[in-house]
Amino acid sequence: QSSVTLYGVMDLSLVKSNGISAQLSGSGLMNNGNSRIGLRGVEDLGGGLKASFNLEQGINPESGALTGGAAGAWNRAAFLELSGGFGGVRLGRSLTPSYYGLAAWELTGAANYSAVANQFGFVAAGARNDSQIAYTTPNFGGVTASLAVVLKPDTPAAVGDNAKYDLNVIYANGPIAAALSYNKVQEHKGNLAIGGSYDLGVAKVAASFQDGYAGGVAPSNTTAQKQRGFTIGATVPVGAFSVTLDIARDTKAKDTDVVIEGKYALSKRTFAYAAYYNDGKQDGAAVYKTGAKNHLGLGIRHNF
Amino acid sequence: QSSVTLYGVMDLSLVKSNGISAQLSGSGLMNNGNSRIGLRGVEDLGGGLKASFNLEQGINPESGALTGGAAGAWNRAAFLELSGGFGGVRLGRSLTPSYYGLAAWELTGAANYSAVANQFGFVAAGARNDSQIAYTTPNFGGVTASLAVVLKPDTPAAVGDNAKYDLNVIYANGPIAAALSYNKVQEHKGNLAIGGSYDLGVAKVAASFQDGYAGGVAPSNTTAQKQRGFTIGATVPVGAFSVTLDIARDTKAKDTDVVIEGKYALSKRTFAYAAYYNDGKQDGAAVYKTGAKNHLGLGIRHNF
Amino acid sequence: QSSVTLYGVMDLSLVKSNGISAQLSGSGLMNNGNSRIGLRGVEDLGGGLKASFNLEQGINPESGALTGGAAGAWNRAAFLELSGGFGGVRLGRSLTPSYYGLAAWELTGAANYSAVANQFGFVAAGARNDSQIAYTTPNFGGVTASLAVVLKPDTPAAVGDNAKYDLNVIYANGPIAAALSYNKVQEHKGNLAIGGSYDLGVAKVAASFQDGYAGGVAPSNTTAQKQRGFTIGATVPVGAFSVTLDIARDTKAKDTDVVIEGKYALSKRTFAYAAYYNDGKQDGAAVYKTGAKNHLGLGIRHNF
Repeated sequence: QSSVTLYGVMDLSLVKSNGISAQLSGSGLMNNGNSRIGLRGVEDLGGGLKASFNLEQGINPESGALTGGAAGAWNRAAFLELSGGFGGVRLGRSLTPSYYGLAAWELTGAANYSAVANQFGFVAAGARNDSQIAYTTPNFGGVTASLAVVLKPDTPAAVGDNAKYDLNVIYANGPIAAALSYNKVQEHKGNLAIGGSYDLGVAKVAASFQDGYAGGVAPSNTTAQKQRGFTIGATVPVGAFSVTLDIARDTKAKDTDVVIEGKYALSKRTFAYAAYYNDGKQDGAAVYKTGAKNHLGLGIRHNF
Repeated sequence: QSSVTLYGVMDLSLVKSNGISAQLSGSGLMNNGNSRIGLRGVEDLGGGLKASFNLEQGINPESGALTGGAAGAWNRAAFLELSGGFGGVRLGRSLTPSYYGLAAWELTGAANYSAVANQFGFVAAGARNDSQIAYTTPNFGGVTASLAVVLKPDTPAAVGDNAKYDLNVIYANGPIAAALSYNKVQEHKGNLAIGGSYDLGVAKVAASFQDGYAGGVAPSNTTAQKQRGFTIGATVPVGAFSVTLDIARDTKAKDTDVVIEGKYALSKRTFAYAAYYNDGKQDGAAVYKTGAKNHLGLGIRHNF
Repeated sequence: QSSVTLYGVMDLSLVKSNGISAQLSGSGLMNNGNSRIGLRGVEDLGGGLKASFNLEQGINPESGALTGGAAGAWNRAAFLELSGGFGGVRLGRSLTPSYYGLAAWELTGAANYSAVANQFGFVAAGARNDSQIAYTTPNFGGVTASLAVVLKPDTPAAVGDNAKYDLNVIYANGPIAAALSYNKVQEHKGNLAIGGSYDLGVAKVAASFQDGYAGGVAPSNTTAQKQRGFTIGATVPVGAFSVTLDIARDTKAKDTDVVIEGKYALSKRTFAYAAYYNDGKQDGAAVYKTGAKNHLGLGIRHNF
């Protein structure tokens, strides 16, 4: 009866941040990814219909702590999906449509040290929603679209009795990927990003335009959280090695974040990485949003 | 060396309750079951003796939260059992004998929207005990009996230095099931239920008599928590579809709870369900014990 | 892609402690081991290089609670290791080198009722470190050595901005095992233990000398926590049965702890045990460190 795949990631790095002694890091800014375990499975219901599920738990391997605490133990994924010729309907805690759109132009695979995500969030908002009801269309010649809603009683109390909408339109065909992502809480400002990438073979280049509000839920009567800017980057693969440069500039705040990443594949499932992150500017409170002016990390990621 | 089976449930529904906006629900009243993961295994020790274990964790798929928190992470099951010709001895956190008796007349499979359980608890008490030491007899011509004890230092501080006893006698043979369940904390009132079901083929009918105290641990010098009443219901299967009606009436409080449930099997492991729950009466505090006068749920349950 | 082994332990006992009613025990003093689940896997990277990981979670089977809470959910192990001809480098939460040294003279397999560990800790300190960076040499004719460091920002705030060092040298060859363990937090007292065991066939005898400070992190300007003493013990196997006597004497506090343990193998993975622990002396506060003067436990441990 059992049909469960158990998978996960263990990722640890040594990090030196400006003004802070060298330290071990697990599930931190200078890790490629957050360590985790997950369960997933698919059942064929016949007639082209499938039921699938995913549960995913974040673990900090420095201590063994649940990164989401008991209240978010499986908060990386906790959903059930029905899919078939009509597309797919996913119910539960999940990555947002905006996040899946962002993958079209984010070059580190949404690493923790992603300049795109640290500068602009995941199209201003978090990467995941609780209580998401999401529909994704079938693939029409490379085009898919997703629309997710979080119903009023299911959004955080802080946003009042308002539903959230989140959508993307993605075009992916051979070397080309392009996407539009948009999300909005009722009675709050909407957040938009649009971008894409092109794989030239010798290099993959990517760019995006970002137009949102810091935190993703700015009240409709303010522009204080306004974020606008662009990202641009390239990845150059050389055999088992690859180098990525990604730049994210907030033109309103005149703040440019830069990440340089080198990866070396030790196997299909394990790679070593080195990354340098430069946080462009202190916030008003004289604090860098990443905690320091710059960071150097050297780590290993093992997928299982 | 490993011999572990990983299993679980993902169950999500859309719910509309009287006076509350529609919402997604995971591990709520209008879910068929609580989402969960579990581990179990059996080892043959030779000579007819077996060692087995079970661990089960509740997860709310709306957020990925542990439904029991860190202090009850595996509180759906955490026990070790030795079984053989003599019967079985189970040690740890487990469903109670009273619960297993209740299965003889509860028609929804102890769904979250069970009228029996929402009206009368699991023979007045909770479904599970911490620190349970339980013995179950071998099957004698369809009859089994279980006796569980929770020793004095292992019961909750709220009941003082008192042990808890919990027992059932079950008869199950072909279309007939009947059971008596009884549980009692020393120096507190005992709780009793007796009932059964008969499978006529075209329908399965069930009924029970309940005589206990709300919460299951009423002090011996009070009758304030007295609950007495009956349950009656029927399930009619039509191919992959089935309809259940279950009614639970507290004759002392003059409170009748009713559930109507329809289930449609999408496969052996996955089904869709619709359920309507009517909570008979407000408590003194003008609050319905289920949170609203009535509830409509439409959901999917996937067992893996 | 999946290559994960899921394993664990379920261990429950009945315990009678001096002055306390009999009770069920899970993950307590009178259990052989703490109940747990774990995940581990190994990947061959080619060229003799391997990547491996381990995650291990403690569970109290009386209630299903995470023994480490959400903040220590996987605190029994959470590490990634690279190993090859050069030895091994392990990053994350792990047992300490001092612990692995102690295994040379501890006869109960570091049972919860170990007299060695309850009297002297794991070479004065805890059994595990967060954020450990550990290197273990290859085996040179039976000799291995391990050195672990916890960097300054990764040690607990209570010890200030100080790194921790932990090391062992182990000799294991046929019937002989001997080890030296040492650990020290900068600006704090160091803790030392040295000992070994010899397997005579009819009996295995063991002894150690202990010289440390209670809790393992005594400030450098005090000797108040001084602990010095020895341990001595023997295990006699008789077929599926074995008896162990282990004595741990703190010569400074004139406190002698004694454990007598009998084990009976029901299979390769399951055994029954009986253990008697005598706590030698009350502390100044008239409280026994184990909670009572003596304890008798009777339990079952199932490895899966």
